Amino acid sequence: MTKPQLTPLAQSLPATVPFVGPESQERQRGKPFLARVGANESPFGPSPKAIQAMQMAAAEEVWMYGDPESHDLRQALAIHHQVPMDNIIIGEGIDGLLGLLVRLYVGPGDAVVTSAGAYPTFNYHVAGFGGQVHAVPYTDDHEDPVALVEKAIATGAKLVYIANPDNPMGSWHNAAVMTQMVAAIPADCLLIIDEAYIELAPAGTAPPFDLSSPNVIRLRTFSKAYGMAGARVGYGIAAAEVIAGFHRVRNHFGMSRISVAGAIAALEDDFWLSHVGAEVAVAKQAIVQAVEANGLTALPSATNFVTIDCGRDGAFAKAVLAELIDAGIFARMPFVAPQDRCIRVSCGKPSAMTAFAGALPRALSRAHEKLG
Amino acid sequence: MTKPQLTPLAQSLPATVPFVGPESQERQRGKPFLARVGANESPFGPSPKAIQAMQMAAAEEVWMYGDPESHDLRQALAIHHQVPMDNIIIGEGIDGLLGLLVRLYVGPGDAVVTSAGAYPTFNYHVAGFGGQVHAVPYTDDHEDPVALVEKAIATGAKLVYIANPDNPMGSWHNAAVMTQMVAAIPADCLLIIDEAYIELAPAGTAPPFDLSSPNVIRLRTFSKAYGMAGARVGYGIAAAEVIAGFHRVRNHFGMSRISVAGAIAALEDDFWLSHVGAEVAVAKQAIVQAVEANGLTALPSATNFVTIDCGRDGAFAKAVLAELIDAGIFARMPFVAPQDRCIRVSCGKPSAMTAFAGALPRALSRAHEKLG
Repeated sequence: MTKPQLTPLAQSLPATVPFVGPESQERQRGKPFLARVGANESPFGPSPKAIQAMQMAAAEEVWMYGDPESHDLRQALAIHHQVPMDNIIIGEGIDGLLGLLVRLYVGPGDAVVTSAGAYPTFNYHVAGFGGQVHAVPYTDDHEDPVALVEKAIATGAKLVYIANPDNPMGSWHNAAVMTQMVAAIPADCLLIIDEAYIELAPAGTAPPFDLSSPNVIRLRTFSKAYGMAGARVGYGIAAAEVIAGFHRVRNHFGMSRISVAGAIAALEDDFWLSHVGAEVAVAKQAIVQAVEANGLTALPSATNFVTIDCGRDGAFAKAVLAELIDAGIFARMPFVAPQDRCIRVSCGKPSAMTAFAGALPRALSRAHEKLG
Repeated sequence: MTKPQLTPLAQSLPATVPFVGPESQERQRGKPFLARVGANESPFGPSPKAIQAMQMAAAEEVWMYGDPESHDLRQALAIHHQVPMDNIIIGEGIDGLLGLLVRLYVGPGDAVVTSAGAYPTFNYHVAGFGGQVHAVPYTDDHEDPVALVEKAIATGAKLVYIANPDNPMGSWHNAAVMTQMVAAIPADCLLIIDEAYIELAPAGTAPPFDLSSPNVIRLRTFSKAYGMAGARVGYGIAAAEVIAGFHRVRNHFGMSRISVAGAIAALEDDFWLSHVGAEVAVAKQAIVQAVEANGLTALPSATNFVTIDCGRDGAFAKAVLAELIDAGIFARMPFVAPQDRCIRVSCGKPSAMTAFAGALPRALSRAHEKLG
């Protein structure tokens, strides 16, 4: 060996990125997007109280490392959710927590179950630790809890991933279905329920927290309804023994002190969440209207985005998306058939919604021209 | 198996924390510290321009995920250091980058070399990936480049860690010594030079960047001289092939958008770094004066802290530290003999320096009383 060698596992991995960022696309285009509606960010932003707390922390507190116990945020979340502090883990977004979960539970060759076309960052982490992804298809554009559990049993999976509500389809299951799923998970398997969009879902979507089961962890974030994607604050709620695992490997001083201050303040502003919910509803209506005016179908959504059935195959949806991007609309799409017949548009401010509605007809006609 | 099992590696790890945070100690004490001078944070804070940039980002940009390429910060660093962008990796502090480096290069049983009593977070990561730490002693309170290289050769180490300037001793080597060390590193080994304190070191401490060698990576941070420990921004500079490894495993959307905006602005304010340097010099002088007034010895320091030889053994220094903490002075100490004869005090504002100077005589006399 003439130079330092990566581990065999690291050597086997490609240099990759689960999502190309809009900034990269803007640099390639040489001009900014008109509407940033591709990453399910919340342009309605965080609570003014959260902004104030972050600004104060930027001026007064950023010279200090964050509290490695994230005590105050865990305490605030404990009160908010009525669960003990020891049942909460704080991390650098759900992405960071997914990485730690995979590291803790998945060794080379271990089986992991997800849906085909679900969150690719999870798969990235599984590959990164040598795990084997087993994917089951969506059923009627919903993740399929029964099929996921069956696959977990068949493969002896260490982890099962489901998002509720789902991204990229916007579909959801009610609490009873999720409770049944938890009950059906094999005893030696951990179910990860990604609830990134839960604050935007109808009442009755989230089951009660079951802190007695070592078989489930619920992941949440300040990136979506709370409007703080750039702050990187996520958390998990689970049985204390599941939470304890994180303390073996986590990056104790990894949390931004500014972000944590913002999250604590955000949590206190229920009014802001209602406001965001109302804005999201307005934006959704705008998307649905534009979609239907063009003869397409908007799928029902419990999130801050709308998944749009473009009515033909993946190649067609891809062409529509390319035309939208060309017109300055940053959007994304599911990448597995038959969900790839759709494109996905995030709820935006009125100007963004108008830009989308304005660009859609031409994008569709050009895609039809191109593909015949 | 009746419940989900961690991987054998994760099972073998203790739940631990490399450093107990001052907030935890304050909660245990039931009262805040008078002086926070234990974590080598910079109470002089970040550049006002950085604060302004972070406040702007908190209000206007935090709803967006950060650019996963960190293009603008890499560009600013490339100009600042006169190196190509592809030779720079951005991460969540040096801690985050150390974790990724260990993950990339160290598998179970692989040898890693560091100094006995050097940065424990590095050892935490090595243990976390199953590596075997081989430690060599300090020589005259300096990390010993020759001994580190010899141990790397003897053990077939994948990684060697050295901090220059060193923490916790404050000592340093000049650029020529470091260049020699890089040249002597075995061809299949990567040398990590942790330069967290480099902006505070005398001119001539940092060697030129050698981007042709696949055997060295230099790690830097905005946590120390730049006064942004709570923002979590670090970076590495190395040969492009070394940097490329990170793209296989890193958490692409892990950077806080607020923090990155602050780092870009901080980099533009050379005046602020000079100001911090001057404040650090004043604070150092205050520490040295208090130390010498009490008959102790302050070790030379190229950092923003002073390591104080308490003149007896580790038990005595530990007693002095306990008394200081009891008096409201948050400080820390080296934890391996004979360096553990010392305590370590960070440069603070005048009020903190006065509090330390006021508490030291009684802490010493009580420690002498206690230990005879």
